[in-house]
Amino acid sequence: MTDADQPGDGPRPAPSYPPIAGAPVDLPSLVSTGDFEAPAAERLHPVARAYIEGGSFDEHTLRDSLAAWDRFRIRPRVLAQVPRVDLTTSILGRPAAMPVGVAPAALHGLAHQDGELATARAAAGAGAINVLSTMSSQSIEAVAAAAPHGRRWFQLYVQPDPGLTRELVERAAAAGYEALCLTVDVPVLGYRDEVVRHHFDPGPGAYGNLVRRGAWGRGNELEGALDMRAVPLTWESLAEIRSWAPMPLVLKGVLTAEDARLAVVHGADAVWVSNHGGRQLDRVAAGVDVLEEVVQAVDGRAEVYLDGGIRRGPDVLVALALGARAVFTARPFLWGLACAGEAGVGRVFEILREEIVRSLVLLGVAGPADVTREHVMVVSSGR
Amino acid sequence: MTDADQPGDGPRPAPSYPPIAGAPVDLPSLVSTGDFEAPAAERLHPVARAYIEGGSFDEHTLRDSLAAWDRFRIRPRVLAQVPRVDLTTSILGRPAAMPVGVAPAALHGLAHQDGELATARAAAGAGAINVLSTMSSQSIEAVAAAAPHGRRWFQLYVQPDPGLTRELVERAAAAGYEALCLTVDVPVLGYRDEVVRHHFDPGPGAYGNLVRRGAWGRGNELEGALDMRAVPLTWESLAEIRSWAPMPLVLKGVLTAEDARLAVVHGADAVWVSNHGGRQLDRVAAGVDVLEEVVQAVDGRAEVYLDGGIRRGPDVLVALALGARAVFTARPFLWGLACAGEAGVGRVFEILREEIVRSLVLLGVAGPADVTREHVMVVSSGR
Amino acid sequence: MTDADQPGDGPRPAPSYPPIAGAPVDLPSLVSTGDFEAPAAERLHPVARAYIEGGSFDEHTLRDSLAAWDRFRIRPRVLAQVPRVDLTTSILGRPAAMPVGVAPAALHGLAHQDGELATARAAAGAGAINVLSTMSSQSIEAVAAAAPHGRRWFQLYVQPDPGLTRELVERAAAAGYEALCLTVDVPVLGYRDEVVRHHFDPGPGAYGNLVRRGAWGRGNELEGALDMRAVPLTWESLAEIRSWAPMPLVLKGVLTAEDARLAVVHGADAVWVSNHGGRQLDRVAAGVDVLEEVVQAVDGRAEVYLDGGIRRGPDVLVALALGARAVFTARPFLWGLACAGEAGVGRVFEILREEIVRSLVLLGVAGPADVTREHVMVVSSGR
Amino acid sequence: MTDADQPGDGPRPAPSYPPIAGAPVDLPSLVSTGDFEAPAAERLHPVARAYIEGGSFDEHTLRDSLAAWDRFRIRPRVLAQVPRVDLTTSILGRPAAMPVGVAPAALHGLAHQDGELATARAAAGAGAINVLSTMSSQSIEAVAAAAPHGRRWFQLYVQPDPGLTRELVERAAAAGYEALCLTVDVPVLGYRDEVVRHHFDPGPGAYGNLVRRGAWGRGNELEGALDMRAVPLTWESLAEIRSWAPMPLVLKGVLTAEDARLAVVHGADAVWVSNHGGRQLDRVAAGVDVLEEVVQAVDGRAEVYLDGGIRRGPDVLVALALGARAVFTARPFLWGLACAGEAGVGRVFEILREEIVRSLVLLGVAGPADVTREHVMVVSSGR
Repeated sequence: MTDADQPGDGPRPAPSYPPIAGAPVDLPSLVSTGDFEAPAAERLHPVARAYIEGGSFDEHTLRDSLAAWDRFRIRPRVLAQVPRVDLTTSILGRPAAMPVGVAPAALHGLAHQDGELATARAAAGAGAINVLSTMSSQSIEAVAAAAPHGRRWFQLYVQPDPGLTRELVERAAAAGYEALCLTVDVPVLGYRDEVVRHHFDPGPGAYGNLVRRGAWGRGNELEGALDMRAVPLTWESLAEIRSWAPMPLVLKGVLTAEDARLAVVHGADAVWVSNHGGRQLDRVAAGVDVLEEVVQAVDGRAEVYLDGGIRRGPDVLVALALGARAVFTARPFLWGLACAGEAGVGRVFEILREEIVRSLVLLGVAGPADVTREHVMVVSSGR
Repeated sequence: MTDADQPGDGPRPAPSYPPIAGAPVDLPSLVSTGDFEAPAAERLHPVARAYIEGGSFDEHTLRDSLAAWDRFRIRPRVLAQVPRVDLTTSILGRPAAMPVGVAPAALHGLAHQDGELATARAAAGAGAINVLSTMSSQSIEAVAAAAPHGRRWFQLYVQPDPGLTRELVERAAAAGYEALCLTVDVPVLGYRDEVVRHHFDPGPGAYGNLVRRGAWGRGNELEGALDMRAVPLTWESLAEIRSWAPMPLVLKGVLTAEDARLAVVHGADAVWVSNHGGRQLDRVAAGVDVLEEVVQAVDGRAEVYLDGGIRRGPDVLVALALGARAVFTARPFLWGLACAGEAGVGRVFEILREEIVRSLVLLGVAGPADVTREHVMVVSSGR
Repeated sequence: MTDADQPGDGPRPAPSYPPIAGAPVDLPSLVSTGDFEAPAAERLHPVARAYIEGGSFDEHTLRDSLAAWDRFRIRPRVLAQVPRVDLTTSILGRPAAMPVGVAPAALHGLAHQDGELATARAAAGAGAINVLSTMSSQSIEAVAAAAPHGRRWFQLYVQPDPGLTRELVERAAAAGYEALCLTVDVPVLGYRDEVVRHHFDPGPGAYGNLVRRGAWGRGNELEGALDMRAVPLTWESLAEIRSWAPMPLVLKGVLTAEDARLAVVHGADAVWVSNHGGRQLDRVAAGVDVLEEVVQAVDGRAEVYLDGGIRRGPDVLVALALGARAVFTARPFLWGLACAGEAGVGRVFEILREEIVRSLVLLGVAGPADVTREHVMVVSSGR
Repeated sequence: MTDADQPGDGPRPAPSYPPIAGAPVDLPSLVSTGDFEAPAAERLHPVARAYIEGGSFDEHTLRDSLAAWDRFRIRPRVLAQVPRVDLTTSILGRPAAMPVGVAPAALHGLAHQDGELATARAAAGAGAINVLSTMSSQSIEAVAAAAPHGRRWFQLYVQPDPGLTRELVERAAAAGYEALCLTVDVPVLGYRDEVVRHHFDPGPGAYGNLVRRGAWGRGNELEGALDMRAVPLTWESLAEIRSWAPMPLVLKGVLTAEDARLAVVHGADAVWVSNHGGRQLDRVAAGVDVLEEVVQAVDGRAEVYLDGGIRRGPDVLVALALGARAVFTARPFLWGLACAGEAGVGRVFEILREEIVRSLVLLGVAGPADVTREHVMVVSSGR
């Protein structure tokens, strides 16, 4: 990418790791999010697949985030008449049609040419919150235009150039993104062996929002990210960021009670428990293993969300029971996107909705807000 | 299935997933219930096999129910003269010849053309309690007639049509079923991937008791079950159900102390700890892991039973030691049925009897009632 | 076997499951007891191998007895000058050259034509205690004559015929067996699938001590063992047994504190913690997991031994640290016997001696009696 | 080796297990220490590889030392501005450029003809401490001369000949080794099956420091080591050893609080927690599992180090959080040495440095000294 790569400067160059065309996927035959993984793998460029699926170091946290659910048991109640389950959840003061949203992930264009446009449309169709990544393939404005009525948040990576950071925030506010989801766990990129070994260069123009020199979008995410250490971002920075736009602030990447308390003190509207998909520091906990610690520290003064290893309806129940207001996930939606674009993402939402409805009925409650701490027991703290 | 499908309306149509004929099984060479699994698999239609063996979601609970026994250790006592073990157990005030009964399972006709008739005869031969499913292949009356002297209970799924529910109860009472075993953990069917993917349609007339419009027996169990959310069934419903027939009431599907206490308060004669064979909500506990919690909550005011993962004699010991009055299991009997009809079920009973006798002698007690909490230790709460 | 099978009545018939001749084993190349397992397997008749190696039911306890060591960590002390380790241990008031002895096992003739004669000679050579099984291939007297200076105990299975039991005890006393090791965990034989499936009939005359009608040695151990339920053997029986011979009494097969206390009350000189090689009741604890419970209950009023999963030097350390005076093992010696007769058993002893010496030096102590509870920590109670 | 093998007596004989020439390794493509393992294996003589990689007995401790990290979870803090991480650590009162050093290991000549010369140069280049083994291929003096400005310690095995021991210490002091690292966990060599089976004889002159009769370097390490039981080495010996040279004393091989306290009482400057790479007593704990016990016992009165299973940046974080001042590792450096001599070791250092820097930034701290107990949680004590 060069200085000449300005938005609108001619056609966008082809991505370096384009999706692979495959036979159409029979969506109704896919009945769990996991069913999308194999067909998605066939449709992703190997480098793109490694980038999307990989974690940092030896990927202990990546694996542990899927295994962690084994450490909980759901406690279902019976004979509680639930004539109709309603998944509607209040998130940041407004209703969302379901308690699962799209976690931000870079470069949906790796999975499908429509990229985040398709994701946003499907999320809007499902009434779910869509969190757009700073590192998206499509621009803030294009994604907003693709699904103008959908709930959308903007995930912010603070940039080496403070002006650019502010510009991103202002663009998001102008485009109707209703919350700022500030990633706080990337002071430097996690050590991901494949990325370190092969570099990861999605090509010029791959990043829809970052087309000026000094931004991360110069083709080598790793190298750019290392620069982050020169970017001032501390608890004290939050006030300035908030001053740029009157949006609720969500802090994404908290894993300790201490930071959860600091988040509340510094006025965060929500704390998002996340280990960044196992992609930052390895050997940190699965989010669900520290969720209760965070919930107790927040003590109702902010909303708490969770991502990490959410694949099926019962996972959502466990997270809600431990105090999460909502959960987010990224890879299942990217799999759906790779399989069938907007329709694929839509099918993933459809499956999750049906699974959560079914799970809530079986739990004996009428909606997400009725899930309580008594609905889950912890059987192990880890191994 | 149409309105014309009335009982007695000509010959019963062939089931959609008929058993596969195989060479006769050498029953004496099968010496554990597990020995029946492979030959049964060969004799079941693949769809029938998937239906019988499968669990919900990712089948964590299904697997955990077998693994859970690893979390207990039996404490055998020595030099306790046990000249003769007697497996006779008092269940609901009457003796049963052994503390293991047939848990209700739908459609024994999938395993053998004789279906529940064969199962009932074998159970009677073993002096064990046989619990007939609402969703049986054979009718309430036919099963009663097949083994008139056997102890028999009727498992009730409340139907969308309240009149049909009452009719089922009254038919069961009239046919000598001595207890009503009300399933309380199916407000909706569990999300079973294979069922969702392929649907499961055993064909018209598959269900022996449900031949009227509005009942579940219309060929698509899944779709029918979803209707359950419109069926009023709460703690308050129990009084009405009890009013239809003067039978003891067993609540099947309890997994928490809270519900066990409510069961007692609402007059249940017994509480049946079950996760429905891992087929309803996934990520719930193995029954044996919550058995003690339930037993303590019930505090002697009702009998407590257990199903889930019962395969061998020592499993029964653990359950008895934790306070179960009796245990039930379904798949081993279906395997026996698939292998050799009534004789196969009989052989399964014979094996279980011998294993339990041997186990009790090795434990140093003369019968099920002598097994106490001191005979088992818990070494883990899960993983 | 018939009434005519009296000792000395002509040549002993060939065993039904004779060892398989193989190339000579290069003993010095075998450096751990585990090294003997594969070559032994090649030299055992398949039925004999299954009989020796198998456990009861699903063999959970069999496997757990090997896995249990993972639940302990040895705590070695440094800079403790140990110029010379001495393995001599006082057992029942007399020195044994090492704290490992031969646990009783039936039918050493399955492993080698010399049977218990070879085992006894090798044990005597190692200065270790040899415990002869009631079910031995060779007779009490022949084994004593084979190693007249070795320490020998006699393991007693009480027989259906009380006179025969007394005769066995008196023969053992007359032949210089210094202790009676009464097995208390076989009120009935464990349910071993292979034995139940195929029966196990070592042929007429296979048992060197049992040649009268009514004894177990009639060719079907299973059937005979079932008769045990008619044999009176309770805590009250011990006095009579002791009255037959002035030998110390060891109770083998205790797994609980309660029985350990009863053993002391009834005058046992030693309590032998054992799950019978995983061959009796399944789902009981590995001996080492209940060793401390037994040691605390005995409280120094009797000696405590352990068998079960002893394979290497560090295993012995763990057992000693938890309070065992000595340990016993059977399969490793049978492997050595199958590989090379007396020389093979001798090599197993040589290896165990070297491993224990090395382990004690590394622990920082001069002998078995110096190993204390502080030398081990428990990291898990099971799983 | 004979009496004639004096230093300088003609050319050094070829080692018995020479490295295997291979194609040059592309070092930049190796991005984790684990990446070096396979190419190193191809370049090591099979006997050398078995010697370097193996552990004692059944290698439970060897494996557990890698698995132990699963029992901890790192607790990263966010929004803690870390503009620049500095790995510099104070060790024994002087700065080291990073908190990872080269643990002593015998015979680097097995991995590369340059042996410890290459290792020392690479360590000096990285600013890391290099601990030379008594059993090195190269002599004390040659290694010092190869990297005169690097920080170097000398690991001491007390020799059967007291004069030789003193000579080694005095040579080390004269050659600028700044600390004496006394190995305390080898009163006898661990029972390593491969070594016992095949012996291990690196040939005459293999050991650079031991060329006089009576020293270990006579070609059979095992046999020599067994002699150690005749060497007086107790807590009381420390004063004499210290009297030979005015160097700080590090005690390597401590695994208990008791010995850690004794070390402090006897004036040790540092306590090195180690299980000797799983090569001494099996079934002892992974160092990290007892690190906190030792740190608490030392209570700030000495420095504490750790080796065992250090492979990646997050491992170092866990150790620092539990109270280690520095960590050491050997095998990764030997792999680097085998792959590419000095450059290979240098690349291992480069990777570790980058991983630790990245890990510290992600933890939210500016350097090793800022890592505290709150940065890690223990989730299991073992299994």
